[in-house]
Amino acid sequence: MKTNAGRFFEDYRLGERIVHAVPRTLSGGERALYHALYPARGALHSSDAFARSCGLPAAPVDDLIVFHTVFGKSVPDISLNAVANLGYAEGRWLRPVWPGDTLTAESEVIGLKQNSSGKTGVVWVRTTGRNQHGAPVLSFVRWVMVRRRAEGAAPETVVPDLADAVAASELVVPKELDFSNYDVALAGEPHRWADYAIGERIDHVDGVTVEEAEHMLATRLWQNTARVHFDAALREDGRRLVYGGHVISLARALSFNGLASAQAIVGLNGGVHANPCFSGDTVRAWSEVLDRAETAAPGVGALRLRLVAVKGDSGAFALKGEDGKYLPEVLLDLDYWVLVPR
Amino acid sequence: MKTNAGRFFEDYRLGERIVHAVPRTLSGGERALYHALYPARGALHSSDAFARSCGLPAAPVDDLIVFHTVFGKSVPDISLNAVANLGYAEGRWLRPVWPGDTLTAESEVIGLKQNSSGKTGVVWVRTTGRNQHGAPVLSFVRWVMVRRRAEGAAPETVVPDLADAVAASELVVPKELDFSNYDVALAGEPHRWADYAIGERIDHVDGVTVEEAEHMLATRLWQNTARVHFDAALREDGRRLVYGGHVISLARALSFNGLASAQAIVGLNGGVHANPCFSGDTVRAWSEVLDRAETAAPGVGALRLRLVAVKGDSGAFALKGEDGKYLPEVLLDLDYWVLVPR
Amino acid sequence: MKTNAGRFFEDYRLGERIVHAVPRTLSGGERALYHALYPARGALHSSDAFARSCGLPAAPVDDLIVFHTVFGKSVPDISLNAVANLGYAEGRWLRPVWPGDTLTAESEVIGLKQNSSGKTGVVWVRTTGRNQHGAPVLSFVRWVMVRRRAEGAAPETVVPDLADAVAASELVVPKELDFSNYDVALAGEPHRWADYAIGERIDHVDGVTVEEAEHMLATRLWQNTARVHFDAALREDGRRLVYGGHVISLARALSFNGLASAQAIVGLNGGVHANPCFSGDTVRAWSEVLDRAETAAPGVGALRLRLVAVKGDSGAFALKGEDGKYLPEVLLDLDYWVLVPR
Repeated sequence: MKTNAGRFFEDYRLGERIVHAVPRTLSGGERALYHALYPARGALHSSDAFARSCGLPAAPVDDLIVFHTVFGKSVPDISLNAVANLGYAEGRWLRPVWPGDTLTAESEVIGLKQNSSGKTGVVWVRTTGRNQHGAPVLSFVRWVMVRRRAEGAAPETVVPDLADAVAASELVVPKELDFSNYDVALAGEPHRWADYAIGERIDHVDGVTVEEAEHMLATRLWQNTARVHFDAALREDGRRLVYGGHVISLARALSFNGLASAQAIVGLNGGVHANPCFSGDTVRAWSEVLDRAETAAPGVGALRLRLVAVKGDSGAFALKGEDGKYLPEVLLDLDYWVLVPR
Repeated sequence: MKTNAGRFFEDYRLGERIVHAVPRTLSGGERALYHALYPARGALHSSDAFARSCGLPAAPVDDLIVFHTVFGKSVPDISLNAVANLGYAEGRWLRPVWPGDTLTAESEVIGLKQNSSGKTGVVWVRTTGRNQHGAPVLSFVRWVMVRRRAEGAAPETVVPDLADAVAASELVVPKELDFSNYDVALAGEPHRWADYAIGERIDHVDGVTVEEAEHMLATRLWQNTARVHFDAALREDGRRLVYGGHVISLARALSFNGLASAQAIVGLNGGVHANPCFSGDTVRAWSEVLDRAETAAPGVGALRLRLVAVKGDSGAFALKGEDGKYLPEVLLDLDYWVLVPR
Repeated sequence: MKTNAGRFFEDYRLGERIVHAVPRTLSGGERALYHALYPARGALHSSDAFARSCGLPAAPVDDLIVFHTVFGKSVPDISLNAVANLGYAEGRWLRPVWPGDTLTAESEVIGLKQNSSGKTGVVWVRTTGRNQHGAPVLSFVRWVMVRRRAEGAAPETVVPDLADAVAASELVVPKELDFSNYDVALAGEPHRWADYAIGERIDHVDGVTVEEAEHMLATRLWQNTARVHFDAALREDGRRLVYGGHVISLARALSFNGLASAQAIVGLNGGVHANPCFSGDTVRAWSEVLDRAETAAPGVGALRLRLVAVKGDSGAFALKGEDGKYLPEVLLDLDYWVLVPR
């Protein structure tokens, strides 16, 4: 049997390191496609000239292109037989990725817990993306529920101790990033770090209706091979499940309208894909300011944001019901850190 | 309120200069996407080698990529609350844009006229795109009907005096462009400047049926944020209005079949989006030769063309009815100058 | 009449050389789009770093991008009035194409045979793609059934003598390709040349449901102008015929799952588009090992493979019925040579 059937719960060993296949060189082509797939308008990633005015040698590859590329590489080894993508934690972007860089990815199994049914288990992995020099560019933890191939004895339960959020002191600001001469007119947003108050909520207003062709183009671009995104025969209604990362990128791009100053993602504290997204859904987004922090870089502050993607009205700020469960219109609840001009 | 709600009629002041946000670096990625989105086959923009044989250092970015990028930047400030895009005039391409160039855009308000209803007004702007050196690459006038936020006193009416067409003497031929060694076989068209007669009409024959995913990819690529193109909830039938510029690029690309010699757009004399285009429409095109001019560049002539996009049969040369109004199958009536080998 | 109506059977002369129009420069943009359009994951074409570890200066452009680009150029001259694309033979990739290279294409008419009806005829052409230095990068024979414009006398029948398969000794291994240090973990496949036995069949398991927008984006990207792919008005059901090359690329990309070692296509022995493909079809693939050969390059072996694309279950290995005819679920039967690490 030469075909990869994916790993099952009993195939993971605590401490095991899995080298993911297919290194990938990113170029201006991926950047252009990112702009076609998402209404992304952040000036730092859109313009070499703007990036230079902020101390960088050129516009880096969008932070979420890096995330999707590294995540996509992990799919054949981690989530091909996943029942659910349960969460993210301790995500940090560690250095910029430039057009021409080649990314590889590796995961370490850091937790295992068989479910009481004996049919599935939860696997925690820390996935690290590296550039062609072997330097880490992104690291994050995710955990997934994976089927067992056959019922059997449970491994020792190890649940990793994960931080509720990345500490501001552990955020990595790209070397030489300097917002001292930041041009608010070109960036498209008069508001700076000091203008965002903890607890403030922003309705991003705009909406995008998802088409099958679009989310499949995006998901393939990241070499994500999970069948549910591509194969209409897997569901009676012929619809394909939209890759959760597609919703992350849609919501992040929509958040430009009100958060255009949120130039670079540096931390991923947590995230829940609360309900599935399908073609025909109109995705909107709202944000909440969770925390603020200073950084040592000139003119650079950090905001911790909640980014919520919904089907329907983003102005209702839908999140959870009285039972503490996500409302059915909520697609995504993401908790992340961004760098913002002070 | 941190979200951009767009400007309303009373927010414009005559003579005001508006710097549009989000500079954009263009690369081979945008060129590849342009070829995927439109059946573009012009040799000058498709091939570095062909461009070099015409005296240029490499293939420039397609003239309409430049137009869409500059236009898209102006949308959040000019047409987010527009009821209608009324016209174009005095458009001139001023120098080539090369892969790696970064474009910015700025508009000057050159006319204002409140409508008698008091609920809307017409705003005329001259929009200029510049490269990273600050050199202008494109300038054009457009006027839009914009809603008032609230009824109120009308500003002084100023209607700019616009040329019916760009004078041939004002067309800018790219520096060093030389069609002396132009290869008609590689260009795909035996006909040269002298073969096109004023009044001649050409049916471009081919048709392309528009899909939602395609026009949304295109419109996002130009960072055009107008909601009507993306949000199915805005119309009862769930269809999204196709960006008028998408129809311009479709028609221009279709016109290759009969006008493959029309290598570079240098002037935009006028244009009307006569009827809306929706997914499912099959777009066809026909052209009429309006004028001919010589240029000082070696082997380079200019043709003034009418380019008409229609739904249905392009061989019927549909345009206006006996009442002088555009027929319902007409999508676009564009008047522009192109450079053609003599 | 300035519009290209395409050639008819009586327009071809034996021995005639046809220069195809519109040279094309390929870049990282085309590579990125290829990854978005197909689930392609071959490490050699995905990663500059992996390609360097195999002795090459960078990742070459995917072999099928080269095929589609050269094929697309030939369409306006060869198959615009084709009733059917009947076959391929003697295809050889002759040197790698690098981002930045410009391709041109030329065809020689090597066979003609009018059908007994007098309304159509078969045209055989040998099409050659060249880079900007004039060096051939790809050569293949294809034959198509073309309509006559009007009934008339048949030309002398000449049917070329074509090889059943490219001889292994005639395969061209890219200069400096060296699989001695091939990394199976990064490539995503533990199996090497010696692990594939003649007669072995592999079910590639995964499926992709085709959307109209996707196959039109792809087909335009290769500047293929055949109307049946784009114009919904040509069929009562409004569906557009999927370009046969789109199915080739889909099937080749799907074959990664079980054949990730099949790094580079070097020979095309034959191919039949057995049934038409339409949007909504879910394409799957299976392969059969037809032959094995050694090469003189270090660590490089060759496999001759049959690649079959089907609608429906690839695990049934559907091919032909008892009558020797292709089963209705078979879309493609391709016979090709690939280079594989030994």
